[in-house]
Amino acid sequence: MDTLNIAKIGGNIVNDTEQLKLFLDEFISLDHPKILVHGGGSSASDMCKKLDIPIQIKDGRRITDGPALDVAVMVYAGLINKNIVAKLQARSANALGLSGADLNIIPAEKRSGMEIDYGFVGDIKADSINTYFLRRLLDEQIIPVISAITHDKNGQLLNTNADTIASTLAVALCDAYEVELTYCFEKAGVMHDVDDENSLIDLLTKESFANLKTKGIIKDGMIPKLDTAFEALSHDVQNVQIKHAKNLSNQTGTELSL
Amino acid sequence: MDTLNIAKIGGNIVNDTEQLKLFLDEFISLDHPKILVHGGGSSASDMCKKLDIPIQIKDGRRITDGPALDVAVMVYAGLINKNIVAKLQARSANALGLSGADLNIIPAEKRSGMEIDYGFVGDIKADSINTYFLRRLLDEQIIPVISAITHDKNGQLLNTNADTIASTLAVALCDAYEVELTYCFEKAGVMHDVDDENSLIDLLTKESFANLKTKGIIKDGMIPKLDTAFEALSHDVQNVQIKHAKNLSNQTGTELSL
Repeated sequence: MDTLNIAKIGGNIVNDTEQLKLFLDEFISLDHPKILVHGGGSSASDMCKKLDIPIQIKDGRRITDGPALDVAVMVYAGLINKNIVAKLQARSANALGLSGADLNIIPAEKRSGMEIDYGFVGDIKADSINTYFLRRLLDEQIIPVISAITHDKNGQLLNTNADTIASTLAVALCDAYEVELTYCFEKAGVMHDVDDENSLIDLLTKESFANLKTKGIIKDGMIPKLDTAFEALSHDVQNVQIKHAKNLSNQTGTELSL
Repeated sequence: MDTLNIAKIGGNIVNDTEQLKLFLDEFISLDHPKILVHGGGSSASDMCKKLDIPIQIKDGRRITDGPALDVAVMVYAGLINKNIVAKLQARSANALGLSGADLNIIPAEKRSGMEIDYGFVGDIKADSINTYFLRRLLDEQIIPVISAITHDKNGQLLNTNADTIASTLAVALCDAYEVELTYCFEKAGVMHDVDDENSLIDLLTKESFANLKTKGIIKDGMIPKLDTAFEALSHDVQNVQIKHAKNLSNQTGTELSL
């Protein structure tokens, strides 16, 4: 089977011109086939502030109401997605920007039945991913650049976490490829001490993850990121790494193991 | 040769939920292959106002500076494009939203050498259109939904008039299809008197266009629209019509003739 590289970048890369340049140079050096999944980090919140759209938080979780969804669609599927596509095309890489609605690549279900109504948030499943057209695109050396926007197939766009999209796509494409999934961000990987660059954890097992979580060494946003990453690994994704965007093509980073 | 329908809708359709619904119902009733090109009308200007981005006008022409371009990309390639795609997918039409940067479909040149610097505005030519992938998509019964954003192949996104994009795509695809180009808007077609619904001009020749322009009966934004429409007709586009969005699949409207 062919190897498929799926790389995910978040807001700290996307919103930093220099980091994004380093990442894209690394990314195009990878062999085909490959997919790029991007979030937008704080860009949507920043835009909400500029537009005086109140950011609603309930029990520490963000609620995506109609105006907040429109901003997510504008910023993620519009501004960020098309700028990345143009930058890849400038490198002669044949990028195609997609939301989950395009070609019905990622159908989702509006989150429901929870104590909190999260608003226009989409939950997705690997077996609902439309892999047919993704494979056709990859066969043509096209690079899908996928934003964190999905749809419910009834005309409603939804916002889905970009880490979850990357992990779910990786699982969905496992039957066709040996998938290597890499979460790229602005740190060298998972760290014992986020302020000490020399404290990189080279290999993180599920057991050590549980331990470090209990000790409070791995915390905050890294926990759901690692949960989705281990989820991918437990579903036959070949290799899952968390690393600095500039190290995409080399060995430095944290490799996960079950 | 297959017939290819290219329909263009502007802001008055895109921003009116009911008109857009009527249009999309008509549009999906057309046989394959088909392409939808959309503008965004006043939506980008409205968003600029909300964001306190001054709209720069020089000699009556709008200047697209960096912030205004970002808004155009967000609104046209993001919000409007993905909502249309989701609405088409809800009708089981396999839509794929594209900017001109995606798959390098529409390379452009930043307008230069004019007395006025228009900013990030892209001029396009029919023989630069990347028809290969458009044809591949159309062969797969995919419906390209194209926003008025192009790129310069050096990483810079640009804004290009949607009427011009529709006309230029029509000309570029003439070798492969019998192209029917329709500009849809909120009027029945070109009118002798815009306030009199019964004054529709069924057939407009180049000569009568010149006459009506001289008399001031055809004026303002209708002039450049008809210029691009006649341009398409003079380059072997089979049929060019200007009509109400709700009449897309029937005969009511203005047909152009050389």
